[in-house]
Amino acid sequence: MAEPVFRRLALIGIGLIGSSIALAARKYGLAGHVCVNSRTQKTLARAKELGLGDSWHDDPSAAVAGADCVILCVPVGACGETASAIADALAPGAVVSDVGSVKASVIAAMAPHLPADVHFVPAHPVAGTEYSGPDAGFAELFENRWTILTPPAVTDAVAVARLKQFWRGAGANVEIMDPHHHDLVLAITSHVPHLIAYNIVGTAAHLEEVTESEVMKFSAGGFRDFTRIAASDPTMWRDVFLNNREAVLEMLGRFTEDLTALQRAIRFGEGDKLFELFTHTRAIRRGIIEAGQETEAPDFGRPHGGEDKG
Amino acid sequence: MAEPVFRRLALIGIGLIGSSIALAARKYGLAGHVCVNSRTQKTLARAKELGLGDSWHDDPSAAVAGADCVILCVPVGACGETASAIADALAPGAVVSDVGSVKASVIAAMAPHLPADVHFVPAHPVAGTEYSGPDAGFAELFENRWTILTPPAVTDAVAVARLKQFWRGAGANVEIMDPHHHDLVLAITSHVPHLIAYNIVGTAAHLEEVTESEVMKFSAGGFRDFTRIAASDPTMWRDVFLNNREAVLEMLGRFTEDLTALQRAIRFGEGDKLFELFTHTRAIRRGIIEAGQETEAPDFGRPHGGEDKG
Repeated sequence: MAEPVFRRLALIGIGLIGSSIALAARKYGLAGHVCVNSRTQKTLARAKELGLGDSWHDDPSAAVAGADCVILCVPVGACGETASAIADALAPGAVVSDVGSVKASVIAAMAPHLPADVHFVPAHPVAGTEYSGPDAGFAELFENRWTILTPPAVTDAVAVARLKQFWRGAGANVEIMDPHHHDLVLAITSHVPHLIAYNIVGTAAHLEEVTESEVMKFSAGGFRDFTRIAASDPTMWRDVFLNNREAVLEMLGRFTEDLTALQRAIRFGEGDKLFELFTHTRAIRRGIIEAGQETEAPDFGRPHGGEDKG
Repeated sequence: MAEPVFRRLALIGIGLIGSSIALAARKYGLAGHVCVNSRTQKTLARAKELGLGDSWHDDPSAAVAGADCVILCVPVGACGETASAIADALAPGAVVSDVGSVKASVIAAMAPHLPADVHFVPAHPVAGTEYSGPDAGFAELFENRWTILTPPAVTDAVAVARLKQFWRGAGANVEIMDPHHHDLVLAITSHVPHLIAYNIVGTAAHLEEVTESEVMKFSAGGFRDFTRIAASDPTMWRDVFLNNREAVLEMLGRFTEDLTALQRAIRFGEGDKLFELFTHTRAIRRGIIEAGQETEAPDFGRPHGGEDKG
């Protein structure tokens, strides 16, 4: 077996992403020892029961002591105080990273707390499911997905290379990006999609003319697709919107402008405009399938023919 | 083998829905003979090659002659002229139906053409995939989905019961509904979801700050979910929006109001409001899964771990 990328990996937080990292680290031999910390006793006990790591720590400081890599797997809004809590216990030379869906604000919140002798390499694995908690993780979550690293220009190149090697080892493609550009890209590919999914599910639930039971029964017309991402972790997503406000509002503005134009086309019966847009969007999906980021199975490969009877 | 529900079934149009009806009719023995008509030679030839039916007709009048059930499987906007084209050839007592995603305007377009001695039972199977054409059909498409019938109160009860039996035979649940209520329900569970999916895919494709390649690479953050329904048939969906204008504009108005409130909550950092909505929407998905309308497999059961590499 090849040498692990990190001798001792500390995971602060063991939800969907933390547990998937733990399982990938074991499956692909990426870490010699995995230390697990969770803010809540119950989650830590469950992670232990699932055997996700090698040692278990109530105290984040104890978890990071002696670790050559520390990854914060907590909601974006908790990164600052977590960095502050572990700062004094970090080993000199350690790679410190995170998995937050927002980068500029996380960097601003964490960086001031970190000692000068650790290497801060912010990261964002663009992967997930609608489930959360330590039971939701699986080793293959990152396979063929992208992990974006946003290190400051001055960051030690060896530290960046090691973290890159770790993520590649977990099956991910790795891209280096400016944190502000990351936040803009993810606003359109992730944050605004989540916002409008949450929004339409909320709208549908509060109509007077259509019952919630009707919404559920006839959801196969398209609505049910949106409920998947609208079932994502509420804390995580609240923090994303609060911490990527500018980029989300900018992209939301574009979305709304375009939607208003579509609304007008419907009102005035401009079929050609609708047809033109609807034709172009087909090509985008084809591109995503060709980029290896989506299955080409009809209906996402959902079961048909009874297996999904509730 | 039990007696088929219909002796001779004529399908006018043989795309995703028409071909799925043809395959379900054969698999479950629902029709003695299936006559297939398509407006385009190429589609008809392909349907023949695939062996979807029993006889093949260039002329819709020839297809419906002697049929005791005729189902129009054409875009909503083509229903009126198709009804006009077949009217004189319809057999007395035949059940005439359709599969349109809009009901009030289709009824208004078809009814005036139909002779008094046929039974018009409008229908909408709420099922589909993002693919279209005769190759896209499969017999299990309707299984455990809902087909909504919207017959006028005066419609012959036996005719309604036969069509209900046909759809039940294809695995569907059947509900009777007022056409205007149907159009309102589907506006929120299907039409507006499609519109906002088409819209965000369009928005993402036309940004200056984010390239199309970035949108595709990082689409696993949520965006790719929307591209599935935004890959649906452009002609079908143009017709839906042109023919369900009032209900779509009404539901779109609600969606936009709610989105504006969310936007405001983000601008002013109102985390509690966001958290409250995000928590409620989780329950809706749970209800849809319990109603048997969605898989509970994470990520729709998409392949993870390499099978979907493009």
